[in-house]
Amino acid sequence: MQAKQQLLIGGAWLDGESARFDKTDPVSGERLWEAASASTRQVESAVARAREAFPGWARTPFAQRQSLVERFREVLEARREPLATAIARETGKPLWEARTEVGAMIGKVAISIRAYEERTGQRERDVGDARAVLRHRPHGVMAVFGPYNFPGHLPNGHMVPALLAGNTVVFKPSEQTPLTADLTLQCWLEAGLPDGVINLVQGAAPVGQALAASPSIDGLLFTGSPQVGDILHRQFAGQLDKILALELGGNNPLVIRDVPDERAAVLTILQSAFLSGGQRCTCARRLIVPQGEVGDRLIEALVNAIDRLHVADQFASPEPFYGGVVSRHAADGLLQAQTNLEALGGTVLARARCLQEGTSLLSPGLIDVSGLDVPDEEYFGPLLKVHRYRDWDEAIALANDTRYGLSAGLIGGEQEDWDDFLLRIRAGIVNWNRQTTGASGDAPFGGIGNSGNHRPSAYYAADYCAYPVASMETGTLALPDNLPPGVEL
Amino acid sequence: MQAKQQLLIGGAWLDGESARFDKTDPVSGERLWEAASASTRQVESAVARAREAFPGWARTPFAQRQSLVERFREVLEARREPLATAIARETGKPLWEARTEVGAMIGKVAISIRAYEERTGQRERDVGDARAVLRHRPHGVMAVFGPYNFPGHLPNGHMVPALLAGNTVVFKPSEQTPLTADLTLQCWLEAGLPDGVINLVQGAAPVGQALAASPSIDGLLFTGSPQVGDILHRQFAGQLDKILALELGGNNPLVIRDVPDERAAVLTILQSAFLSGGQRCTCARRLIVPQGEVGDRLIEALVNAIDRLHVADQFASPEPFYGGVVSRHAADGLLQAQTNLEALGGTVLARARCLQEGTSLLSPGLIDVSGLDVPDEEYFGPLLKVHRYRDWDEAIALANDTRYGLSAGLIGGEQEDWDDFLLRIRAGIVNWNRQTTGASGDAPFGGIGNSGNHRPSAYYAADYCAYPVASMETGTLALPDNLPPGVEL
Repeated sequence: MQAKQQLLIGGAWLDGESARFDKTDPVSGERLWEAASASTRQVESAVARAREAFPGWARTPFAQRQSLVERFREVLEARREPLATAIARETGKPLWEARTEVGAMIGKVAISIRAYEERTGQRERDVGDARAVLRHRPHGVMAVFGPYNFPGHLPNGHMVPALLAGNTVVFKPSEQTPLTADLTLQCWLEAGLPDGVINLVQGAAPVGQALAASPSIDGLLFTGSPQVGDILHRQFAGQLDKILALELGGNNPLVIRDVPDERAAVLTILQSAFLSGGQRCTCARRLIVPQGEVGDRLIEALVNAIDRLHVADQFASPEPFYGGVVSRHAADGLLQAQTNLEALGGTVLARARCLQEGTSLLSPGLIDVSGLDVPDEEYFGPLLKVHRYRDWDEAIALANDTRYGLSAGLIGGEQEDWDDFLLRIRAGIVNWNRQTTGASGDAPFGGIGNSGNHRPSAYYAADYCAYPVASMETGTLALPDNLPPGVEL
Repeated sequence: MQAKQQLLIGGAWLDGESARFDKTDPVSGERLWEAASASTRQVESAVARAREAFPGWARTPFAQRQSLVERFREVLEARREPLATAIARETGKPLWEARTEVGAMIGKVAISIRAYEERTGQRERDVGDARAVLRHRPHGVMAVFGPYNFPGHLPNGHMVPALLAGNTVVFKPSEQTPLTADLTLQCWLEAGLPDGVINLVQGAAPVGQALAASPSIDGLLFTGSPQVGDILHRQFAGQLDKILALELGGNNPLVIRDVPDERAAVLTILQSAFLSGGQRCTCARRLIVPQGEVGDRLIEALVNAIDRLHVADQFASPEPFYGGVVSRHAADGLLQAQTNLEALGGTVLARARCLQEGTSLLSPGLIDVSGLDVPDEEYFGPLLKVHRYRDWDEAIALANDTRYGLSAGLIGGEQEDWDDFLLRIRAGIVNWNRQTTGASGDAPFGGIGNSGNHRPSAYYAADYCAYPVASMETGTLALPDNLPPGVEL
């Protein structure tokens, strides 16, 4: 697949009219994509073309929309390798993991069809001489903002349900992953998507700002940083007519109750904190470990495993656990965060380091910040904080000591500990003896606190892609047998 | 039942500490209720007691919460007549209609239990050696704001699902209907609701402002005016941790396609526009009628029926179609709205008039505003505007010419007209040959545009009363057969 390196507006690939930008492989430094950003005029034009395409798409019978989305799945299956390669190159993630991302895109189709039917769809029953019918209708033009960590899977998780429900889309991918968006849109066109049903505007913040500010969108579906999510939530205040769904980050705790199997505990921590180089919003950021010998031994084993963890370029053989973070700039930011935590009194147990000059390859970092007042921030990379605790209540209090609430995990403990944890922990994904990063695709996905705005995605994405229309209907207008009180005709 | 004329905080009936206010029967002028409002300190205390009650209530097994709500239903059944009488006296609605309101409160229990199970509840499946479990958890302390037009049914529609899901509540009823709230809370206590699970704060705007501004609530469920809804939406901007559900008003269209049965059409219009004295948020406000003879004849028949419509006090015999509007002040406001529409060029076809000096009894008003630029406002009473149209496209354009989108109706037409209407009209309740005011209790209820914030209520109230928690869980921590790439333990 060849990148178009253009915008897609109303079915036509067009050059942008604004600032040029490019994307390089964060490990090899190779330039992958380069083009001009969309101008504000082009963003408005994309919205207008989505608006024009809306009535036709909304009136297309569901079965036809479903067929088209299923054809898209077939195209993805045929394009699996080039897509995975593009994702690996532009995000820095290992090829094996990029392949699982394409797999998740493929899997999203069947899940979304099932969710559409179960959560929305149509119900009907007779009531006397009329029918009570519940239908669901699309909102109209949805702006979709994608993040860079899963540039295929996460916007796909908004777009597939949005299209199934009958909405049209203007997609603004992260400026760090224009290539994956470019190729994904080619797959949609190859599947036969009508002109204007998805439009693609590329560029950095000004493009996103123009799209979010467009008076002509009916909703905005965003997966990204809490900072931008907060700005959007304020910007949409008083705009009740627009639906806003925010999937943001977290400062997720992983609590060690005890250690029934040390190697398994260590593996679960590695997979929670360092999978995708820590660039999953469900990654554990805070490891909450008992004081004393059991905890000491676990941390020692963890440090040993971190030392042996294989981090290398996306296509290396043997395969790495993770590759580069998304950019050298991001890598610098993570090293700076580690420095800041150290300055606040943190004790580095394993130091995050740049593994190769000029690349974004970082070794995993582990830093003990017990008892310190450190920022409640999401460091989006391989940097795990350790908090030691005295007793169970303190462990729970530490775990909940965040304004976020996306994921949480418990390792060890008995059934009653798990029951107690479930009742007291505040998060939307809560796992026991399983990595925090292992969310099931057919479950809803979302957090509480500042991790979102109570519009859970994944299985519940159907909910925010359509609104219910309740009808009482009959083709026959007739007087009832009895008139209501006080009426004379 | 005797009114307590107090606040209910943490299970104790207490006198308010702030301004005294009272409520009189808007028709007879009799004083029904009088007490001091809650102070800001008392509002905070109510929130604090709800917070204290939350963990215990949230941990109560669902079956027990369900039993308690079912005992509440039994109490309602036993208190049917005194409750209906109180509702009739304080709202001005006829006793026969107040009885249907208590019936709706009773019916809400079974519907909410079913909705809890279907929309939220728990799902479980095995995935390899773990279980994928989907649970739903309560938010915490929910502020519930009730409107005056259904002072029993509408707050009940928030509170029953909120309690079933495990939330606790601080309830602020309309200051125009303190009596119904007072009696409803007594029913909850009689059912055995634990202290603090619902708290009642009485008073006008300052009480609502204090409750909405409380940093300690986890959500706010509001049914009321678009003006207040808009203020709340702006106030909650940036507070992602709180869930806000707004059910607001509309400027609802009822479109006449043709008139297959004139008397049935007239009845449907009366029931759409004037049921409850026009004090339902689903009431038709705009009657969209074809130009020409068919439309002329329909309007003539409607005016005749309006002349014969029986409007009288709540307990009159024979029974009136509707009684007084909620207050004399509200009646004055409606007459003023009619005067304003006339000043803008409207032609009064039937004049709304005060039927008896010193009461809120208003005759129904019908005013032709075709072609005029009149405010897109909800006049919450028996005042129906007429717009004449030339062709079908103009009819649809007129119907959609509102920033709201709560209900809409079509009278007449063939199946293809109905299909077209359904696809083009923008509203959440859309009926054919049925009054706009007849919403099914087991359907979701909510509007689009400025009629709400995409948190539909009734059957979908379950959705905003709980958040999903997705888990992957196993009691056994064990290494998998194969380690992921790049890991050595």
